[in-house]
Amino acid sequence: MDFPTWMAAIQARTESALERFLPPAAAAPGRLHEAMRYSALGGGKRVRPLLCHAAGEIFAADAARLDATACAVELMHAYSLVHDDLPCMDDDVLRRGKPTCHVEFDDATALLVGDALQTLAFQVLAEHGGTPAMIVLLAQASGSRGMAGGQAIDLAAVGKSLTVAELEFMHIHKTGALIRAAVLLGAHVGSADDKSLFALANFAGRVGLLFQVVDDILDADASTATLGKTAGKDAAQNKPTYVSLLGLGDAKRKAAELRSEAKSALTHFGDRARRLLELTDYIVDRQF
Amino acid sequence: MDFPTWMAAIQARTESALERFLPPAAAAPGRLHEAMRYSALGGGKRVRPLLCHAAGEIFAADAARLDATACAVELMHAYSLVHDDLPCMDDDVLRRGKPTCHVEFDDATALLVGDALQTLAFQVLAEHGGTPAMIVLLAQASGSRGMAGGQAIDLAAVGKSLTVAELEFMHIHKTGALIRAAVLLGAHVGSADDKSLFALANFAGRVGLLFQVVDDILDADASTATLGKTAGKDAAQNKPTYVSLLGLGDAKRKAAELRSEAKSALTHFGDRARRLLELTDYIVDRQF
Repeated sequence: MDFPTWMAAIQARTESALERFLPPAAAAPGRLHEAMRYSALGGGKRVRPLLCHAAGEIFAADAARLDATACAVELMHAYSLVHDDLPCMDDDVLRRGKPTCHVEFDDATALLVGDALQTLAFQVLAEHGGTPAMIVLLAQASGSRGMAGGQAIDLAAVGKSLTVAELEFMHIHKTGALIRAAVLLGAHVGSADDKSLFALANFAGRVGLLFQVVDDILDADASTATLGKTAGKDAAQNKPTYVSLLGLGDAKRKAAELRSEAKSALTHFGDRARRLLELTDYIVDRQF
Repeated sequence: MDFPTWMAAIQARTESALERFLPPAAAAPGRLHEAMRYSALGGGKRVRPLLCHAAGEIFAADAARLDATACAVELMHAYSLVHDDLPCMDDDVLRRGKPTCHVEFDDATALLVGDALQTLAFQVLAEHGGTPAMIVLLAQASGSRGMAGGQAIDLAAVGKSLTVAELEFMHIHKTGALIRAAVLLGAHVGSADDKSLFALANFAGRVGLLFQVVDDILDADASTATLGKTAGKDAAQNKPTYVSLLGLGDAKRKAAELRSEAKSALTHFGDRARRLLELTDYIVDRQF
C-alpha cells in the first residue's frame, strides 16, 4: 500500500471510529452532543491518530484497539482546540474552514463541549483496553504539566520576548506532549519493549517540535484559505514564533534538521518504521 | 468515634491528600498551579469524599486507596465549580467565601484550571489502583451524559418553566451523577459485590436528589454569609428550582421523604452503613 492510500485509510477509519464513540445528536442533551460532533468530526488531518497507528503497526498492534487509542488522543486534541478558540483564549472564529464551536453555538456550549470531549477521551481509552499506565500517560501529556500547561505558558508569553529555549519549552508542552503520547500509546497497544519505547520517545520529541516549527512557518507563509484557519494571527497577536525569533530561512533550516534527527531515531526499527518515516516527511512537505 | 470526629478526620485527610496530589505552585507553570491549588484546597465540606470513604468503610476498603479515589471525585467536582462560575456560565464572583478563580486570576487561567483539574482527577485515580472499570464509571458520571450534560440542560432551562420531572432529570445529571460515582467508587475500592453495588446505587440516587433539594432550599432561605456563595441567585437568574416549582413547604417535605428513602436503601448493610446514615442526616440538617 502506498503512503497516500494508507493515510486515507487511517483517516477514514478514525472518522468512522469517532462517529461511533461520540454520543448521537439524538441523545439528550442534544445541542451539546451536536456541538461535540461538530467539533470533532469531519475535519483535521488526524496527525495524532496517524502517528498512533504508525507506531502501533511497528509491533503489529491490534487495529481495533489502535482505533480507540487514536480516537482518545484525537478527542483530547479536539477539546483543546475548542477551548483555545474561546474569546478568553485565542478568540478565533475559523477552524478547519468552519466557524469555531463558540461562534456556531455559543461560549457556554463550547466550554462544555471541550469539557465533555476531554472526559470522553479517557472513557474511550478505558473502555477499549487502555491500561491504568496508558491512562496516566494520556493524563500527563494533557494536564498542567503537558498540553494545558503549555497553553498557560503560551498565554503568559503574549507580548513578551522569549529566547528560543523558552519557546521550545512552551511547545514541548503545548503540542509536543500530546504528539508524544500518540506515538507512545500506539506502541503500548503493541506491547512495545522499553528499548523501543525509548527510541520512540526520542523520535516523538523531534517530531513534536518539527510539527510546531512547520506550523509557525505556515502561519507566516500561507493564506487563510490554504490553512482553513486564520493566517498571520501569531504576528497579529504579537506571539513569539520560530519565524519571529529565527527568521523564515533559519526556521526552515531548523525544520530540516529536526526531520533528519527524527528519522535517525527510528534506525532501531528498520523497515518496520516505514509509516513513521513517511509521516515525518508528510508533516514537513504538506506545506512547503 | 462519633460522627463529627469521623467527619473532621476524613476532611483533614482529604485536604492533606489533595495537597499531595496537586502540583506544587513552585513547579512551572506556576500561576496555573497556584490557581489550581487556590480552587481545590482549603474549602468545601468535602461531601463527595465523605460519601466515598463512608461507602468504602462498609467493605473495610484500604484507606490510602480511598483517599486517592475520593480526591479524584473531589478534583472533578472542583473543576466543575471553576467552569460553572465563569462569566459565560453562571458568572459568579463568590465561592466558598472567596473570590471565584476567574475573579482572583483571570478567565483564561480559570478555563485552564478547570481543564487541568479534570485531567488530574483521572490521573490520580489511574495512579492509585483505579481499574479501567472505575475510570469508566468516573467518566460516565462526569461527561456529556453526566455532570457536563446536566450543566447543558441547566443552561437550556434558564428562563423556561420546567416540570418537576424535567427538573429532576437535570439534577440527576448535574449533581446526582458525581455523587453516585463517589459512593460507587468507594464501594469498588472495597470490592463490593453486585448486590451491594445495586443497593448503594439506589441509596446514591436518593441522596443526590436530596442534596439538590436541600441546596435549593438553602439558596432561597439563607444569607450569602452563611452559604459562602451568592444567595438567592437562582431566583435572580430566574432558574427553576424545587422551591420555585413546589414552594418552600413542599420542598422541605420532599427532602424529608428522600432522606427516609435513602436510609431504607441501606437496610441491607445493617450497622456497617452507619457513616452513610449519619451523612444522610448531616446533608439535611447542616442547613435547616
